[in-house]
Amino acid sequence: MSKPSIPQGTRDFSPEEVRKRQYILNILKGIFEQYGFQPLETPSMENLVTLTGKYGEEGDRLIFKILNNGLHEKKDADKEKLNAEWSKILEKPFSSPVVTERALRYDLTIPFARYVVMHQNDLVFPFRRYQMQPVWRADRPQKGRYREFWQCDADVVGSVSLINEAELLCIYQAAFHAMKLPQVTIKINSRKLLAGLAEISGNADLMMDITIALDKLDKIGWDGVAKELEQRGINNDGINSIQKIISVTGNNEEKLVALEAMMKDSAIGMQGIDELRKTLSYHKTLTNTQWDSTVEVDISLARGLNYYTGVIVEVVTSAVKMGSIGGGGRYDDLTGLFGLKGLSGVGVSFGIDRIYDVLDELNAFPEELSVATQVMIINFGGENEQYALSALQPIRNGGISAEIFPDVVKFDKQMKYANKRNISYVILTGDEEREKGMYSLKNFKTGEQQMLTLEDCIKHIKAQ
Amino acid sequence: MSKPSIPQGTRDFSPEEVRKRQYILNILKGIFEQYGFQPLETPSMENLVTLTGKYGEEGDRLIFKILNNGLHEKKDADKEKLNAEWSKILEKPFSSPVVTERALRYDLTIPFARYVVMHQNDLVFPFRRYQMQPVWRADRPQKGRYREFWQCDADVVGSVSLINEAELLCIYQAAFHAMKLPQVTIKINSRKLLAGLAEISGNADLMMDITIALDKLDKIGWDGVAKELEQRGINNDGINSIQKIISVTGNNEEKLVALEAMMKDSAIGMQGIDELRKTLSYHKTLTNTQWDSTVEVDISLARGLNYYTGVIVEVVTSAVKMGSIGGGGRYDDLTGLFGLKGLSGVGVSFGIDRIYDVLDELNAFPEELSVATQVMIINFGGENEQYALSALQPIRNGGISAEIFPDVVKFDKQMKYANKRNISYVILTGDEEREKGMYSLKNFKTGEQQMLTLEDCIKHIKAQ
Repeated sequence: MSKPSIPQGTRDFSPEEVRKRQYILNILKGIFEQYGFQPLETPSMENLVTLTGKYGEEGDRLIFKILNNGLHEKKDADKEKLNAEWSKILEKPFSSPVVTERALRYDLTIPFARYVVMHQNDLVFPFRRYQMQPVWRADRPQKGRYREFWQCDADVVGSVSLINEAELLCIYQAAFHAMKLPQVTIKINSRKLLAGLAEISGNADLMMDITIALDKLDKIGWDGVAKELEQRGINNDGINSIQKIISVTGNNEEKLVALEAMMKDSAIGMQGIDELRKTLSYHKTLTNTQWDSTVEVDISLARGLNYYTGVIVEVVTSAVKMGSIGGGGRYDDLTGLFGLKGLSGVGVSFGIDRIYDVLDELNAFPEELSVATQVMIINFGGENEQYALSALQPIRNGGISAEIFPDVVKFDKQMKYANKRNISYVILTGDEEREKGMYSLKNFKTGEQQMLTLEDCIKHIKAQ
Repeated sequence: MSKPSIPQGTRDFSPEEVRKRQYILNILKGIFEQYGFQPLETPSMENLVTLTGKYGEEGDRLIFKILNNGLHEKKDADKEKLNAEWSKILEKPFSSPVVTERALRYDLTIPFARYVVMHQNDLVFPFRRYQMQPVWRADRPQKGRYREFWQCDADVVGSVSLINEAELLCIYQAAFHAMKLPQVTIKINSRKLLAGLAEISGNADLMMDITIALDKLDKIGWDGVAKELEQRGINNDGINSIQKIISVTGNNEEKLVALEAMMKDSAIGMQGIDELRKTLSYHKTLTNTQWDSTVEVDISLARGLNYYTGVIVEVVTSAVKMGSIGGGGRYDDLTGLFGLKGLSGVGVSFGIDRIYDVLDELNAFPEELSVATQVMIINFGGENEQYALSALQPIRNGGISAEIFPDVVKFDKQMKYANKRNISYVILTGDEEREKGMYSLKNFKTGEQQMLTLEDCIKHIKAQ
């Protein structure tokens, strides 16, 4: 028999990893609900037609497709068709509902749009939802990139108010504050400002090209971006004006004032500045002085995805070397893909896997996450087993997690188990304890041991 | 554009449904952890070879297989092989890793066994884990049967102690007590008793046939079972002795005493009785008098699955018409499938979807699950918007979930939204309130409205 394994790019999560992941998800869940966002869950499988054509050519290629079941039951005529489709699949990256009717969720955004359109008559708008579920992509696995990974999105659809943008900024701040994740900066920009920048540089039609080039600023520096802009057909004057614009400095208001001077000939640029200013003003009213993350206007922030149309954000931390740990923005016509036009939305997403890695590297997970069970009762067998067992539920009723070693094996083996499980206390119930009606409580960390009544054991543990 | 839809047999979970499901899962999680069980999560995809041959022929057919990506990039020689495999798939229910290397998880038991074998050197035994994740089966969808559904399992491996069985009985009782799910009976039997019954009836070799027939007792009654036993080759004497054994009455101890008299010539049967008695004795020490569910020896309980070897259990409620809401048992060689022999385990599973349906039918979900947001602030725009916004975070800091209607739209529309969202309170901040530095708090249920300071609003809401 060959050694069992799991598919490349997937992961088992050990108990400690699950607890750490749940710690992050629970913080987010608590904050989302405090802000009026509601949980939604969609199926892991979507109809293939729901997904294809939504993520670009590369995306279509990376969607995991599920083979239709019962192909052998098809009639001969169907089989001819199946064979024809199969040939196409072997020729080029081709999706065929005849062979694969269903596919695995590729992100949470398209299923959300699909849900809103399907339930548009039952939902009350604005509809705020959060969704924390795995997605699957047939990407080449590498460090930090998995074929199954979790996304965590919060979106509001059916409202154009910039209060939503400001609230989402607060959600980021509240979340990273709660996680004690330090040195967080939330970069903010507007696609309208990028459109203005393209207009001012004399290349209104090349906005996407400029966006794609600017997106690489962090990686390749300005010289690299300038080179790419040139390759994408921007002339020298244009490149210079872009450099001038993205080089504005100062605090947020100073940047906006400087940009206003440069953008005055671009209506859409001025609109972008106005929206950023309003968002920041709402945010100022809403923000909590305890939160130590900063919100920073960054005119070079581009965000790759095409569907953003207004304010865009991206979250980074300088505490460890890591890409962005969150991002989002406003999109004006997401549900239009499924026939429901004119529903504006804005959303943010949390990069759970990266946040996990950052907290792990910083040793910022609470210590108690490594304690699975608080108390273990040693099993000495015979009459003492019965005596030990009778203590178990009273301890649990005291709100303490507890277990008994189920088998009567050597003391050393039981202690080794408790140690490896990182259990805080063991209780010993030998003949002496049983005869006295007492329990010996041993603190595993300090080694301290005392004989107490059961009630006092419980009090002692709870006091820690 | 055609109307979007989701695949047959899958479900979207609306916010209220997610909250209700999380309510169930959180109760279970809390109890599992109180009993020293640790969370585990395995990937949605497993290698196809891990799954095939583990669930019988029918199971193999119902596994969802994932089409390999990048088939068009294969060389000509590979494509010939692909075509050959494809032909086989079209001929009969055939799984081919060349076409589909990966498949979706079919249950939580096999991935758990696979995990234990892969990590046998890191784990400390007994290893107690719980796992709550979706599984997928290409079954024909019907009422209450889905192609994507959640399983929730708790298992202990690496311990032969019957304390584990007793603890799992307590977990069932504690869980259904916490959910206020009434009229619960946990039926308990032993595969060894069933083997004894086969032996006593003179058909030791037909134990599986007898088990399969007995499994239908609830559905087809004794006459039906007797008929099926006859068809399966049991003679009249055998059928009579089986009927006599499964007809024992009385409380659990009375049944065991009666069975002892009948089974005295079957060593394995006597062992089964002994194990049941020990399990019930442990359980008696551990159980909590508050729990109102009962544990009942049911010698006709069979449990279909083959891999059980010791005590088996099944949970039913008579409160609504519904199949079993949980079940489990001891298995002696699960990890043997992956090459690790001699590791005994025992586990139980909760039928989340059915438990949900029972609680829903009984209206037993806590009312607060239908309240998503406690307070909504009406948005009157202009200066009042700023004033309203400034109240939002202090309310949230008070531990109250709160939102503001983000857009300045008609009062009626905002109230309609709050009503449809089942929001408990609205806060109004008109000119009068703003000038006085006060807030009008309206209780949506009673209609009562009073003008208060923000601090008093928070106090009032928290007092409810």
